[in-house]
Parts: sequence; C-alpha cells; structure tokens
Amino acid sequence: MRAARLYDNQDLRVENIDTPEVGAKDIKVRVAWTGICGSDLHEYNDGPLSIPKDGKQPLTGHSLPVTMGHEFSGVVEEVGSEVTKVAVGDRVAVNPLIVSGKNPDKLIDMYQGFTFVGLGADGGFADHVVVDESYAIKLTDNVDLEVAALVEPLSVSMQAVRESEIEFGDSVAIFGAGPIGLAQILAVKAAGARDVFVFDLSDERLEKAKEVGADYAINSGETDPVEFVRNLYPYGVDRSFEVAGVPQTLNQAIQLTRPRGMVTITSIFTHPIEFRVYSLTSTGVRLASSLGYEDDIFALTVKMIETGQIDPSPLITDRIELEDIVDKGFKELQNNKRQAKILVKLSGEH
Amino acid sequence: MRAARLYDNQDLRVENIDTPEVGAKDIKVRVAWTGICGSDLHEYNDGPLSIPKDGKQPLTGHSLPVTMGHEFSGVVEEVGSEVTKVAVGDRVAVNPLIVSGKNPDKLIDMYQGFTFVGLGADGGFADHVVVDESYAIKLTDNVDLEVAALVEPLSVSMQAVRESEIEFGDSVAIFGAGPIGLAQILAVKAAGARDVFVFDLSDERLEKAKEVGADYAINSGETDPVEFVRNLYPYGVDRSFEVAGVPQTLNQAIQLTRPRGMVTITSIFTHPIEFRVYSLTSTGVRLASSLGYEDDIFALTVKMIETGQIDPSPLITDRIELEDIVDKGFKELQNNKRQAKILVKLSGEH
Repeated sequence: MRAARLYDNQDLRVENIDTPEVGAKDIKVRVAWTGICGSDLHEYNDGPLSIPKDGKQPLTGHSLPVTMGHEFSGVVEEVGSEVTKVAVGDRVAVNPLIVSGKNPDKLIDMYQGFTFVGLGADGGFADHVVVDESYAIKLTDNVDLEVAALVEPLSVSMQAVRESEIEFGDSVAIFGAGPIGLAQILAVKAAGARDVFVFDLSDERLEKAKEVGADYAINSGETDPVEFVRNLYPYGVDRSFEVAGVPQTLNQAIQLTRPRGMVTITSIFTHPIEFRVYSLTSTGVRLASSLGYEDDIFALTVKMIETGQIDPSPLITDRIELEDIVDKGFKELQNNKRQAKILVKLSGEH
Repeated sequence: MRAARLYDNQDLRVENIDTPEVGAKDIKVRVAWTGICGSDLHEYNDGPLSIPKDGKQPLTGHSLPVTMGHEFSGVVEEVGSEVTKVAVGDRVAVNPLIVSGKNPDKLIDMYQGFTFVGLGADGGFADHVVVDESYAIKLTDNVDLEVAALVEPLSVSMQAVRESEIEFGDSVAIFGAGPIGLAQILAVKAAGARDVFVFDLSDERLEKAKEVGADYAINSGETDPVEFVRNLYPYGVDRSFEVAGVPQTLNQAIQLTRPRGMVTITSIFTHPIEFRVYSLTSTGVRLASSLGYEDDIFALTVKMIETGQIDPSPLITDRIELEDIVDKGFKELQNNKRQAKILVKLSGEH
C-alpha cells in the first residue's frame, strides 16, 4: 500500500510498504480521506516531535519513520478474531487519540501523556490503517466520508466548548479564523451561542468565517476588537476563545470578556509571554484551556454531523492526491491563507 | 470623637472631629475594634489611592481627608427615622464594601467599580461610624466584638474558597502565610479540605500557620514546594491559592496542582510577569481570581464564627490604642513578621 512516512525534519516520503497485519482486537480500515492538520505542519517543519529521532514513542513504542495523518475516515475491510463491535463494511471515523489507560466508557484524561495515531503511531496518509476496534466510531449512511475526515479537528473545538462552560444564548468572541477557529464557530453555534465575533488579520480567512456562520468577522489589524465588542456589549461577551496563540490576542480576549466570563485557550503558546495577572483580578475573568478531546465529545461530534446540527463541509477548500501531499498540501497551507482544510484522497470509497 | 484621618502619602493624623450625623436610613455605630489591613498599609505608603488627591471618590463623592479602617465591629448607638432592620443596642459587624447598585439580596458584582467604608468613605479608626443600615450584620451574643473585627479579612478568604470551586475532601496548597493566607487556611478547613500545605519564606509566619491549622507548613526558601507536594500527591493537589503575589509562587502553584485543578489568585500583582501559557494547556489547570466578597459570603462568615465552625481569634497578635496606630500598628506590621492581625481599640464596649 501507499503511505506518506516522516523520516526526519522536512523529510516526508510517499512509499510503497506492506499493508499492516490485523491483531485479534484490531480492525483494518481502507482509508477514504485524510485531512492535513496544523500539527502535521508543525511536526514536518519543526520536528520530529512526537517520536524522538533516535528513540521510541513512550506510549506506543513506535520509532521513525511513521506514517502521518490523524484526521481520517474509511471503511472496515478486515477485523481480528476478537473484534465484537465493528464489522467488515462499516463506515467509520477514527478517534486517533492514544492515552495511557484509554477507556472508551470514561472521560479521557490526556494530561498524564498522550499521542495520536498518525503522529506517535502509523496513521491515515496511507491506503490502510490498522487500529484497535475501540478507536472506530461507526457512521450512519448519510454522512459523507469526506465530511467524516473533519470529525477530528471539529472535536478539538467541541472540547473547547465544553471547557468554556458556555451557556445557551451566550455571546462569543473567537480570535483566529484558521481551521480550528472556523471549527470553533460551528461548535459554539451548535451550543446555542447568540452573537459570534471572529477576529483575524486575513480578509480571506474572515470571508470564510462569515460563510461558516460568524455574525461579525472583523480584521483586527484595522479595527480594535475590544472597542468593537464593547460598542455592542458594554460589559463584554460571555465567552472568548483564543485560537491565535499570540500575547496580544490573549490580552484582547480578557479585555473584551465580561466580568466573571471565561477565556478558553485552544492554541499552543510555544514561548513565555508578558502577562498582567491583574487583568484577571480586576475583571473576574477566568482562564481555561483545551487540549484534544474526550471520547464522548468525539462521539458527540459524529452525532451532530449525522443529525445536521453541524455541517463542517465548508471547511474543505481542496482535495489532493497522496503523491502531492507536500507541494499541494503542506506547502500550500503555509502559503495560501484562502486554504482551510485540504483533504488527501486515499484508495477507499468516495 | 477621635478619628485617624489620611491627608496624604504617609500623613495619617489622629484628630478630634465632630461625630457624624445620622441620616434617615443610617445607623451610628460606636466602634469597639478595628483591624489594620495590608491595603491600609498600601494606601498609606503608596497612596492616596482610593480617593484622588485633588478630587472626589467616584462612587461616594468623598474627598480627602478620609477616616481609614474597614475591618470593624461595634454596637449601634443611634438609628435614623426610616431604619427598620437594626435597633439601638445591636452588636454588629459592618460589611464595608461599597459598589454601584449594591443590593444585599443579590450577589454583588464588584467589577463595575467598588470602594470601601474606610478607604473611599469614613471608616472605623474612629469612635463612631455612620453607615446605611444595610451594611450592618447583627451578631449573636456569643461573638466577641474583637473577633467580629476579623469578619472582613476572613470574608476575603471565604470568597476565594467559593471562586476555587473546592469540593469536600480536596487537598489544598496555599502560597503565603500573611494574614490573608492564614485566613485562607481557616476558610478551606471550614470547607472540608483534606490536607493543607502552606508555603512561606518566614519561619515565624509558618509557625502561626501551623497554629491556625496547616497540615504542612513549609519554608519554600529551603524546600521546593513542587517536589514536596508531589511526593505526597503524585498528580498534585486539587486546589491552590496564590496569596503571595510573586511570579515564582504563581508558577509553583500551577505546577503542583493536579490536572484540571484550579489555582485561585487572591493577591494583587502590581506589575506584569513573564508567564508560560502552555503551563495551563499541558495540565488543564484553570486560573480563577478573587476580589472582595459577595454579601452572602460576608454573612456566612459571621454565621460560621457564631457556630464555631471557624475560630479566627488566633490571627490576633496585638491590640493597640488609636493614638499609636502608626508606630505600633502600620510600622510594626511592616517590620515584624510575627504580627498577623493588629486590632485598634476604640471607645466601644470590649
């Protein structure tokens, strides 16, 4: 089968390798579509990060090269002898999160260590993936497999909704209109948000934000977000989401959130920042963060796509072949702000 | 009557002034005891802060000089013609918090602006204070008036307990064993905390922390708090309270709190700090803050003293005369770490 495997920093090779064997509790998925994620770019440009260069991933024991791709969907082609919940022919999305002591019936606690299928173990930029059956979520027939490849990034935003303790009818500000920012719009709308303000520096991204459902899509290079929000909400919005990952937007998020509201940080801040702790004390605004997703959030995302409560299809801006993954995928995402989610087409049903 | 009035930076004068008149909804309290607070020292050394030097306090319209003292108790000596809930002879603690639209039946939102009787209006370093009857909380006979002067600082810690969303049996770390840190020990114990770790650099203060109920009182100049806690609680404690106000202790508080636990900031950070936002993302630890107290928390504090659920009397380390307020009060607190709460004796019943 074909697989895009990471060997080293900026060294991703599309190769022909043996199709992996199925263990007793495993299923083999013929992959249909796999999305490219910002963390794939990070792993490619600044990594390898998930697997140490001359060692093994602590949870999986996997060493390099690794097949990347953690946002994927497909059809079950083979099942192990002890598999009970999934059958050949099932259409599935795969929850790629690997944690120590993963238990699908309980909330996952990622904070003791985690990795992903497609970062710390072989993933979905390949014609086949083998995973434990517990990783698969069955899809109803009305869900397109290409939309199912969006369950994973959407789940990140759905988890952030939970962490934010949002209430029905709350007003919301979102900083950043990249793929996760766009998914955040969908997720807060699905939770019954009233007015959704989205801030970004790129007019292309803001156009997409409008398309996805932002009530206000504002270029924060031209208009001050705090003033803009406070003109409409004098005390500030109920909830803010920091999806941009820069000090300025975190400060703005705190400043335009109402007293005792919540700012939820979804982005990864790689460096220390200068921070005014008193900006919390003087407002009662709380800081939460979100990382990954719990099992039930992943399943809820699938459910909401099935029922039509969320339609993430506008996030898809391109579809490419596996052979073009670097040039038309990774590099295109870095250079073209019009791109949100690029899907890689694998050999499964489309 | 006698009153200690702030005229300017480091200019506090004990003078004889007219006893204030009682309005229709006011009560006149003959003050028994008034505690000296850290914010009194701040106002004296770095102020005037609550009232602008050549202007008026926005909420009260008061200009300098102002009679200081916001932690006080006494007996009602006179009531206005429309007073209905308080009678002459009632023993009371006074809730000194002044907010816009203060409503004793609802939670107070301080974040639109606030001041205190004794900072933005005339307070309790005087033989008499006149306040609206809604500020008074009646005391049962078994509450000493000197203990009643501790209701206010204890309420600050009680509010922080509420903000922390502590649960019965939670383990707790407290950074700072000054008066509010000590009150924090009492408050978390009253909320059913399991193990309480207190960190400070002063052995004198740590001794007092032990006396007040700390299970572990650790000199953080000698022993690393994170290591110490993680030896006993490998995942960290459930809740931490930052009462020291320095960057290092905030970072330590985050590091020794369990995943998805809460760090509550009670101290005032006057300067920006360098902060690793990722320390939140990688742990799921949330940041809350606490400022002042809601009306029902103030009343709960009185109640818990009445019932004996909290005994704050060990916080009192000295009692002084009004005439000695600067030398034996303000300056003594700055210079002697053995001091926690110094009470000023006024002319009321003792």
